[in-house]
Amino acid sequence: MKRPPTANRYRDTWAGEPRASRAGEQLRVAGWVHRRRDHGGLIFIDLRDRSGLLQLVFHPETSGEAFAAAERLRAEHVLSAHGLLVVREEGNVNPNLPTGEVELQVADMEVLAQSDTPPFPVDEDGPVDENTRLHHRVLDLRRERMRDNIILRDAITREMRSVLSGADFLEIETPMLTRSTPEGARDFLVPARLQPGNWYALPQSPQLFKQLLMIGGFERYFQIVRCFRDEDLRADRQPEFTQLDIEMSFVEEADVIDLMETLMARVFAVSGFDVAAPPWPRMPYDEAMARYGSDRPDLRFGLEIHDLSDALGQTEFKVFRSVLDSGGVVRAFNVGPRETPRKELDELTEMAQRHGAKGLVWAFVQSGGVWRSPVAKFLADEEMQAISSRLGASEGDLLLAVADRPRVAADALGALRLHLGRPHAHGHAPVWVVDFPMFEWADDEQRWDALHHPFTAPLGDLDDPGSLRSRAYDLVVDGSELGGGSIRIHDTDVQRRVLEILGMGEEESERRFGFLLDALRYGAPPHGGIAFGLDRIAAIMAGADSIRDVIAFPKTASGGDPLTGAPAPVDERQLRELGLRLL
Amino acid sequence: MKRPPTANRYRDTWAGEPRASRAGEQLRVAGWVHRRRDHGGLIFIDLRDRSGLLQLVFHPETSGEAFAAAERLRAEHVLSAHGLLVVREEGNVNPNLPTGEVELQVADMEVLAQSDTPPFPVDEDGPVDENTRLHHRVLDLRRERMRDNIILRDAITREMRSVLSGADFLEIETPMLTRSTPEGARDFLVPARLQPGNWYALPQSPQLFKQLLMIGGFERYFQIVRCFRDEDLRADRQPEFTQLDIEMSFVEEADVIDLMETLMARVFAVSGFDVAAPPWPRMPYDEAMARYGSDRPDLRFGLEIHDLSDALGQTEFKVFRSVLDSGGVVRAFNVGPRETPRKELDELTEMAQRHGAKGLVWAFVQSGGVWRSPVAKFLADEEMQAISSRLGASEGDLLLAVADRPRVAADALGALRLHLGRPHAHGHAPVWVVDFPMFEWADDEQRWDALHHPFTAPLGDLDDPGSLRSRAYDLVVDGSELGGGSIRIHDTDVQRRVLEILGMGEEESERRFGFLLDALRYGAPPHGGIAFGLDRIAAIMAGADSIRDVIAFPKTASGGDPLTGAPAPVDERQLRELGLRLL
Repeated sequence: MKRPPTANRYRDTWAGEPRASRAGEQLRVAGWVHRRRDHGGLIFIDLRDRSGLLQLVFHPETSGEAFAAAERLRAEHVLSAHGLLVVREEGNVNPNLPTGEVELQVADMEVLAQSDTPPFPVDEDGPVDENTRLHHRVLDLRRERMRDNIILRDAITREMRSVLSGADFLEIETPMLTRSTPEGARDFLVPARLQPGNWYALPQSPQLFKQLLMIGGFERYFQIVRCFRDEDLRADRQPEFTQLDIEMSFVEEADVIDLMETLMARVFAVSGFDVAAPPWPRMPYDEAMARYGSDRPDLRFGLEIHDLSDALGQTEFKVFRSVLDSGGVVRAFNVGPRETPRKELDELTEMAQRHGAKGLVWAFVQSGGVWRSPVAKFLADEEMQAISSRLGASEGDLLLAVADRPRVAADALGALRLHLGRPHAHGHAPVWVVDFPMFEWADDEQRWDALHHPFTAPLGDLDDPGSLRSRAYDLVVDGSELGGGSIRIHDTDVQRRVLEILGMGEEESERRFGFLLDALRYGAPPHGGIAFGLDRIAAIMAGADSIRDVIAFPKTASGGDPLTGAPAPVDERQLRELGLRLL
Repeated sequence: MKRPPTANRYRDTWAGEPRASRAGEQLRVAGWVHRRRDHGGLIFIDLRDRSGLLQLVFHPETSGEAFAAAERLRAEHVLSAHGLLVVREEGNVNPNLPTGEVELQVADMEVLAQSDTPPFPVDEDGPVDENTRLHHRVLDLRRERMRDNIILRDAITREMRSVLSGADFLEIETPMLTRSTPEGARDFLVPARLQPGNWYALPQSPQLFKQLLMIGGFERYFQIVRCFRDEDLRADRQPEFTQLDIEMSFVEEADVIDLMETLMARVFAVSGFDVAAPPWPRMPYDEAMARYGSDRPDLRFGLEIHDLSDALGQTEFKVFRSVLDSGGVVRAFNVGPRETPRKELDELTEMAQRHGAKGLVWAFVQSGGVWRSPVAKFLADEEMQAISSRLGASEGDLLLAVADRPRVAADALGALRLHLGRPHAHGHAPVWVVDFPMFEWADDEQRWDALHHPFTAPLGDLDDPGSLRSRAYDLVVDGSELGGGSIRIHDTDVQRRVLEILGMGEEESERRFGFLLDALRYGAPPHGGIAFGLDRIAAIMAGADSIRDVIAFPKTASGGDPLTGAPAPVDERQLRELGLRLL
């Protein structure tokens, strides 16, 4: 704590503050009973406030009244205590506690609140059923780990604001009750009582508003802002989440990326997260997919994927041949020397299949470069040699290969790579993924879909959507996407063309995005930006298993809050006022 | 701007930055065409970016290509220009512009975007129909006044965060999709698709969550947070608004008030709002009502209201007599020497009546203390003398009196006082109003109502609700409430009693506030806090007429956004997914 508390009837000193240098002072502290120990006729209380712990000692002779009251103290009772700070006797010093050299000899005490017996201990970090934790969140938040997480999250957002304000960014609020700006997920809707039949939507992101702010001349905007997506159940996803949202005018990709590296390096530093100084590598999407099987490559370990098409150019092995002939690929990576029993190989094969692959080829390199592999008999020696050489394989190495469509091979091998590499990963590896495709063909809907969003500036020929790249960039750390953004379209005609390619007629474009198209007509500067997922960043910085551990009051996977019971039924009258009826 | 922009293809210098000391440098700037003047065969452009204006000069001979392009420039086109910074000739210096001593001789220019003719001029502050402003908000935001307001709002929130973070407050986010915590207004409701028939409510304030955070041990919390109230049409009210929300543990009233004075003094200072250094006066509610006719007294001027019951103790004037005998009051204030024609007296009377008074008594003090007044003939000379003396009246003064129930007399005279005093008010006068009644009797519902909210700590005997004071405090500046708060109840039994007095049965208390009552059982510290209305504070600091002028994308009084067209109808399919149907 940066300052002593204001002295009042409850306290004049933080519990975590006193050191031996203050022995002999009369102090008043307040907080919770963290632990109680009775020993040698005395009562010892570890008193906890946000700053830390202080040992209180109650003597039956010297302060009988306080002692009598202390006898009734239980875990989590709240008290204010006053007394003399003394240095502990030699053998009683606790080197694990910042206040471990001193203790407060309590002269008088006021019990401010009692506590029922907590359903789980607050003074230890043992596992507790998550529903119980969420139901009794006030107790869960008192535990050291949750307290530290929330404090870290505050420190992270302070650092973000400090960097951005220092770089002339303005924090500007955008509406929460707004019009749907579809970004692939469902909107949460809010009925408008004053305009029956009409609805607000909660924002999935302030994307269009931040672009309007650029067109409005603010040049550098940010906001730490709540966003909403009404998605189906999935672990570790929250219907409301927080985003660091940023936009800049008169910039190109490098300007945004450079500044964001400065920003995130500061966030990493304040979190004690050890990352090499920027600049960080920038990797084209195609390379990430080919070498790491993912557009979120985890670069903390090797296991790089290689294309074997060259080595197999003349192969007569039917499985490979037919895949290669139909535009597919054969890719593989070298797991390295690894004892892998049959059972595990089966599991790896199943994993590949879960990611869409028809199968997985495994091979152990034996002495003399011979393979032990189900496919060994189908391949020429030179082919096996060429593959081994391509993969830098030597005796004892396990090789894994997938023959399939490029995307499937990437997905399957990418998943296997993570599964096998992550347990041995160390350090942290940020990377910018760039040069994304602008559109992806959506087979089910038989139309182009924007890989980022329809406001991303394209690079290339608009007449050939499949060949377009976008001016987008994602920041990936250790295989997690921390944020993503792009240079935006600032030209009405280009924006119209992109919406057209996405299958929107003029009427639909006008209806949904007319206000953006209209604003673009009045002098829009070149602009671009980025958004970071704050919950995920905080969770990674805190080393938390779940984003729920860095949110004070999160929801369960079904969108419920066990604490307040939200969502809940409402009165018939409220529905009538909204002009609504349950089906 | 604190730092020069990153040099890129668009610019390397802010437009508002160059001074004569940099003459001779090659600079690149970017921005909007603020104004264009053609003069002496040259084209002059005032180029505008967020930092300010810079004059660009285009010479037909020395840079023919740029000149030709400049001929097509119109207001609000966007460009990047490069050239030599020179000192202007003696007669051309513009002392009103920070860059007024220099100009940029443009060598080359890139037009980055064109603009249609704006529907209203961006380069002047003339009145524009508000609907047009909101519809073309990007243009409105480019105008100096709006830009300054948004920049000031950012400065205010930065100052708030700086003070609070420096005082060990943590900024902690609370849920937006939550359970209704009724505070007197209607909730905005959000249907929960995954739990059909159930609804989230958008928070009217994070009141209960911040109390839970105190019970959870965070001790010092703040949040600048969006809140929502679904209220009926009223000018200058927004369905979503922003609050600086604060809560502290182990505090009493004085602790909160002292710290908030430090905070608000800093906010005033950063806004250039001249207020005396704290401490600021603290005035009991009863005194504010009696002397100023309002619980938000405007102390920038006198016109104090006095009670005349003493002076009229023996009066035989029937109107006063019957009011006094039925528990009413006669109160008055001295307007001072004031020529007031009959027509204006009638208007003042109407104003009193609009505030519930049956009538208004006026009197001019004439020479010798005689009154010119419709009631002069009903009053004894000594009564008139006593009243004049009570009001410190002398010849020429206008006196205004109301005889009615105390609340009505306060309301009517309070309104007249503001009407007559405000035009002559100067300076700024903060005051804390304290010692509020805990409950008000709601005649229509025949039950007690909480004057603040049901979580405010009461002072006095719970068995006599009408006599209870609350531990609440409001900060009022110049007659506007900037914020209000209280010490909260931290005892389960007291909380139950208060809910009971408000007419809630045990079942209803449990259903609506069970999670708070439950949390209170596990060791709740004494705590209290406050919430400030950020929109109103920013509007007052900016000298804006409306809070809509300090919100980037506000809504109209009917809750609509002319820019995006929100709220809007949604697809039948979306309603079906929510299990809903329009009535």
